[in-house]
Amino acid sequence: MAGQATVTDVHPLDDDELHALDAYWRAANYLSVGQLYLLDNPLLREPLRVEHLKPRLLGHWGTTPGLNFVYAHLNRMIRRRDRNVMYVIGPGHGGPGLLANSWLEGTYSEAYPAVGQDEEGMRRLFREFSFPGGMPSHVAAETPGSIHEGGELGYSLAHAYGAVLDNPDLLVACVIGDGEAETGPLATSWHINKFLNPATDGAVLPILHLNGYKIDNPAVLARIPREELDALLRGCGYVPYYVDGDEPATMHREMAATIDRIMGEIDVIQHSAREGELTGRPQWPVLVLRTPKGWTGPIEVDGMPIEDTWRSHQIPLAEVRENAGHREQLESWLRSYRPAELFDERGAPRPELVAQVPAGGRRMGANPHANGGLLLKPLRLPDFREYASEVKKPGSTMSEPTRVLGRWLRDVMRANDDHRNFRLFGPDETASNRLDAVYDGTAKQWLGELRGTDENLARDGRVIEMLSEHVCQGLLEGYLLTGRHGLLSCYEAFIHIVDSMFNQHAKWLKTSKGLDWRRPVASLNYLLTSHVWRQDHNGFSHQDPGFIDHVMNKKAEIIRVYLPPDTNTLLSVADHCLRSRDYVNVVVAGKNRTPEWLDADEAVLHCARGAGIWEWASSDAGREPDVVMACAGDAPTLEVLAATSILRERLPELAVRVVNIVDLMRLQPASEHPHGMTDAEFDALFTTDRPVLLAYHGYPWLIHRLTYRRRNHRNIHVRGYKEEGTTTTPFDMVVRNDMDRFRLVIDVLDRVPQLGVPAAGLRQDMVDTRTRHDAWTRAHGDDLPEVRDWVWQS
Amino acid sequence: MAGQATVTDVHPLDDDELHALDAYWRAANYLSVGQLYLLDNPLLREPLRVEHLKPRLLGHWGTTPGLNFVYAHLNRMIRRRDRNVMYVIGPGHGGPGLLANSWLEGTYSEAYPAVGQDEEGMRRLFREFSFPGGMPSHVAAETPGSIHEGGELGYSLAHAYGAVLDNPDLLVACVIGDGEAETGPLATSWHINKFLNPATDGAVLPILHLNGYKIDNPAVLARIPREELDALLRGCGYVPYYVDGDEPATMHREMAATIDRIMGEIDVIQHSAREGELTGRPQWPVLVLRTPKGWTGPIEVDGMPIEDTWRSHQIPLAEVRENAGHREQLESWLRSYRPAELFDERGAPRPELVAQVPAGGRRMGANPHANGGLLLKPLRLPDFREYASEVKKPGSTMSEPTRVLGRWLRDVMRANDDHRNFRLFGPDETASNRLDAVYDGTAKQWLGELRGTDENLARDGRVIEMLSEHVCQGLLEGYLLTGRHGLLSCYEAFIHIVDSMFNQHAKWLKTSKGLDWRRPVASLNYLLTSHVWRQDHNGFSHQDPGFIDHVMNKKAEIIRVYLPPDTNTLLSVADHCLRSRDYVNVVVAGKNRTPEWLDADEAVLHCARGAGIWEWASSDAGREPDVVMACAGDAPTLEVLAATSILRERLPELAVRVVNIVDLMRLQPASEHPHGMTDAEFDALFTTDRPVLLAYHGYPWLIHRLTYRRRNHRNIHVRGYKEEGTTTTPFDMVVRNDMDRFRLVIDVLDRVPQLGVPAAGLRQDMVDTRTRHDAWTRAHGDDLPEVRDWVWQS
Repeated sequence: MAGQATVTDVHPLDDDELHALDAYWRAANYLSVGQLYLLDNPLLREPLRVEHLKPRLLGHWGTTPGLNFVYAHLNRMIRRRDRNVMYVIGPGHGGPGLLANSWLEGTYSEAYPAVGQDEEGMRRLFREFSFPGGMPSHVAAETPGSIHEGGELGYSLAHAYGAVLDNPDLLVACVIGDGEAETGPLATSWHINKFLNPATDGAVLPILHLNGYKIDNPAVLARIPREELDALLRGCGYVPYYVDGDEPATMHREMAATIDRIMGEIDVIQHSAREGELTGRPQWPVLVLRTPKGWTGPIEVDGMPIEDTWRSHQIPLAEVRENAGHREQLESWLRSYRPAELFDERGAPRPELVAQVPAGGRRMGANPHANGGLLLKPLRLPDFREYASEVKKPGSTMSEPTRVLGRWLRDVMRANDDHRNFRLFGPDETASNRLDAVYDGTAKQWLGELRGTDENLARDGRVIEMLSEHVCQGLLEGYLLTGRHGLLSCYEAFIHIVDSMFNQHAKWLKTSKGLDWRRPVASLNYLLTSHVWRQDHNGFSHQDPGFIDHVMNKKAEIIRVYLPPDTNTLLSVADHCLRSRDYVNVVVAGKNRTPEWLDADEAVLHCARGAGIWEWASSDAGREPDVVMACAGDAPTLEVLAATSILRERLPELAVRVVNIVDLMRLQPASEHPHGMTDAEFDALFTTDRPVLLAYHGYPWLIHRLTYRRRNHRNIHVRGYKEEGTTTTPFDMVVRNDMDRFRLVIDVLDRVPQLGVPAAGLRQDMVDTRTRHDAWTRAHGDDLPEVRDWVWQS
Repeated sequence: MAGQATVTDVHPLDDDELHALDAYWRAANYLSVGQLYLLDNPLLREPLRVEHLKPRLLGHWGTTPGLNFVYAHLNRMIRRRDRNVMYVIGPGHGGPGLLANSWLEGTYSEAYPAVGQDEEGMRRLFREFSFPGGMPSHVAAETPGSIHEGGELGYSLAHAYGAVLDNPDLLVACVIGDGEAETGPLATSWHINKFLNPATDGAVLPILHLNGYKIDNPAVLARIPREELDALLRGCGYVPYYVDGDEPATMHREMAATIDRIMGEIDVIQHSAREGELTGRPQWPVLVLRTPKGWTGPIEVDGMPIEDTWRSHQIPLAEVRENAGHREQLESWLRSYRPAELFDERGAPRPELVAQVPAGGRRMGANPHANGGLLLKPLRLPDFREYASEVKKPGSTMSEPTRVLGRWLRDVMRANDDHRNFRLFGPDETASNRLDAVYDGTAKQWLGELRGTDENLARDGRVIEMLSEHVCQGLLEGYLLTGRHGLLSCYEAFIHIVDSMFNQHAKWLKTSKGLDWRRPVASLNYLLTSHVWRQDHNGFSHQDPGFIDHVMNKKAEIIRVYLPPDTNTLLSVADHCLRSRDYVNVVVAGKNRTPEWLDADEAVLHCARGAGIWEWASSDAGREPDVVMACAGDAPTLEVLAATSILRERLPELAVRVVNIVDLMRLQPASEHPHGMTDAEFDALFTTDRPVLLAYHGYPWLIHRLTYRRRNHRNIHVRGYKEEGTTTTPFDMVVRNDMDRFRLVIDVLDRVPQLGVPAAGLRQDMVDTRTRHDAWTRAHGDDLPEVRDWVWQS
């Protein structure tokens, strides 16, 4: 166990162990090739015929034998040391290898009982791989033991580090492909070691797998001199160990000895850190494994070199149905693994192989961390009402929503301190986003050099900030998928940096929900603040509310979007999100001082409804409104309320209904989203025939996408961000995008006919005020005083 | 000049030069602080009063003095060596510094004649910074000499490398902030040196600026030991040079000497490469500059340390209007630069400063590469009709669209070979995307180690492939903004990796178009292939057609989206895109064998119209159709045509109109997009009252977003990708998403009433065939033969 061993704890492989290890590896390779090619005749009991072969060869070989080699040696290490080990497989298309190992160790059959450890099970294993309705060719949610999808490259190391946070007993073996190593997210993930606490977190063993080639190119890190690679890894803060070759027996001996040495190093680091002897940042080991791509596969096909070139990436023998020569070569390739030695008469792995497999939950395919819902403990959440602002009258007080939220989050951390299962991630913005109350209870975890002027940095802390949205997202995903809770706070515009990571996580959740053996995990919570309307310092480059549009393309059962208009609604929404499971929750909220509209009870009710009429702001009591003014988001809410108060003063006879929307998904039809309103509910809020003016936080057309099937859709007019902005004042931003109170009043006048002479005067006043705003702002660099100092009067 | 100097060409600063250099730096710092604070009294002719100060202090100080220091020393080097130097400033919020330098060298006044080099000009310079309608606080399109927006971090080095490709004479000095250095894209951009050809490309001088802090945190690379940083940079293939300190005179001497040494190294590399003496990959120099954040600013404010801490990031003295102490401190800070020594009576820079500035086009603010449209040469484009397939009858022949496009691209490269101004970028997929004909004419540029089995790799080539979409996009942006042409080909799903980079580029183009001094540049062309409908090998993780939705949020005048349904339309679209300027063109096209529908002339006409009726596929000749079947994208087109042929056979009386859409923007109202159809045009295609079934390549709701204002919108029913998929057959993919021919027929039957008994039988047949498909596919792993072998019969 960790801390007990020493660096001298190296046990050379004896010949029996070598033989057994190699047999296991051959079995995994055999089963991998079988998945690529075979529909039938899984044990090659008869000569290979065309009808045994899949009609469409889908899947990839190149990376697989190396992954199988790693798996076999990790099994040995787990058995010898009784270690708690999870794998993360970075390379794409490792599917067949991991499925083969899962089948060998029995975890495949436990997850999918129809696929037993016998000949029929092997046939099914082969057939279902990359087959319609079957198993994907990447390591995926369907793969027992995985928390990481192998499709899009670059996130393995961040996932691995996220998994070991607060899991001091856990080791994650993270295989990094040399293709993947070229991606940005991976390249910076090496530096996460500056945030890992060896005393309270587990260990990651990165295994950089240099098999030399991507789809069609050599890999960069495989084509730099050894001394450069060594410097690079040491520069990233690691101590590299190398295993390099292609002769199996030698490679087995080297790999076993090297993993023993590495585990000894890890044990020493953890032991000394936990005994308080290690106060600096340790240099963690990294294993560099150099093997031929397509190792043990065909060396040449049709006169072209295959093994150890990019040509082994996919299907080395592509014409096995049409070309008898290919078919013969495939058969001898398969037989080179000597299946009869590996599987018994029933098709089950022979005892020699089974002996290679760790026991029960120590099997990597059965590690409970990889099915995090098994370990998930609900958060203890302090009653958010106690943090709520007292709102005696709407709009009479102001607060900074995220600052108040920060106090509640601080106490969420405190309340769950003993479980160490809640974390906050952010690129560098927790304080900028005004969540800094959390530092009263914790710190930013930081293992880099400390200086006297530093604040809120400590070796142990619940907050991790690294200026890489990719790393923050990757850590959070790894943390959640291993059964914990968390929140990522980010500038709204820059969350697009992780659009594609979000895609993959949403796809993972969708797939997981369809697997009865995967347990629900905590939702992925985004708090997007420093949003489009308040980029006073930053301007145009920081203005993009489109992440909402992006997430909407994923499955409705996964996606939730909230736009709390004030502090208390933000608290209520945050409480809801931290209780939820298997969603992606996107919360967009302001950090700037904003009027408070609802008290705690009203906020709870409003958030539960998701959208509702604000009667205190409406003037349609007891009658059909002349116009519905709807708002979603804090800045739009402010402008709509300001517009209604102008209308109330200047056109008191006009019946205005104010509708506020917190839960954006409510706008969709009930048939499209679980939160969607029925048509009756929608019509009750928005009428069937009155003009609706809807001021929305983001790009206006999203509202049309959500509402186009509603009866009154033709009367809905949306104002929102239309990509106009610069470094300017808050009010100038809404003016530039035609969402300001004066423009909204004009919009009403344009849509409600027959308002007569008072309306004409009002319109001219509105036009004049906008002109005055423009002149004032350009002269004074500030908002019009009447806007800046405006206060809601009910 | 390059190649003439040697490493010994170091000229120590003498005292006069030191004094002048320091004066220039003080002037730049003074002008930077002025921009942050001053509305008036720019030369401090009178004591500072409240009314001289901006009411809202927006902007940032921390990074600026270091940037000014770099600029001053680059100027010295440019003057001494007459070098062609462009800057790229990575750190955010460097705006005031670069604007100060631009004003000092006169390029600001050339771009913005209202801001002269005199007291009134200085007043305007100060006032307009971060002021409504003024200059942004980041280095931006508005900044003379910039090709790089300083807002979102991480892309500087890729932009710099992109700029020097094929510009052997150009040096790009690229300042990388230590915050930015934590991002993934930057972390992997270091490795672009494995692709840079020192003989035919220019040089990048990366200047890693360690000022130690981000917004609220220490920077990782500033808190690792020197030996780790050194190893990291050497491991990335560079030779680091260090300048480290805070005492100005010493720092000036060290910086000048170090830059001399570095330039000598660069000259030696370039000279030996160009003489053929250097055949390996050179180790390029990198400069590591360590200076205090907020250098020369307030050391302490209100008892808190400011200089050399994160507190100097933004506005060091925040209450200068309210707090007289702050105001006094500001005044003495400003006076510490001794403005009277720097500016003459008129407010112009004194001759001593002017002498520091390089001449004319050598001023970095005037470098024509940074306004690439000035240098842009139109591509010579071979007539794409000569590459077109002969299509005698629609659907009678098949081809792989991207494979044919590859042949044309090969000849585009050849035709422009002497200009060296066209490049293809891709993560590792040029061959996978079947564009590999380009390798008949060129190679992948690669400076890494070469092996005997390698193919299509060479030191000089028009294709660059690195497995980082960020790097590919960054290189292309840098290449385009310096006046060249290019194309990025990428798997459709993974282009989301660069969503945020696209955002910034689109914002850059929008801003540039509003600046009369910026000339149009070539469009950024995406070829998205290996698309959602044909991920046979890859499955769910590779299925995401949402990039189209993402780009649609940007300004209509920038965005173009094309969905060519076959080979000849792809050729026509590609030709159009390579001729266009200042757009982002998104082309989604298949690589798989697809029927050819249009011959070259028809394709040209169809693409010019953007959308049109395919009469040869329609059965509504001379009458109003009973149903419009529309399609956008290759897979939808195939399914719609297959559905219409079922309908023609089984319900010959039904009048079906087939509409194909190539240019997606045509669907929008003319008021929303320059390509948008008028309502009359739209109604002529889609009718005002008939059911429209539209099969679309991507997420269906985008079509509703584009068409919700159309008269017939309520009758438009869209089929598209609804996030259902796995590793499966092509036809199973359309079935899973309800876009298959049989489902489309059922959709027609659902929408056209009174078709009677034959319709009932047809419906049942369609339902049965779908069931049969499912059973067949699961049994055989292949598509139903009647689907797989289906051929259009007109």
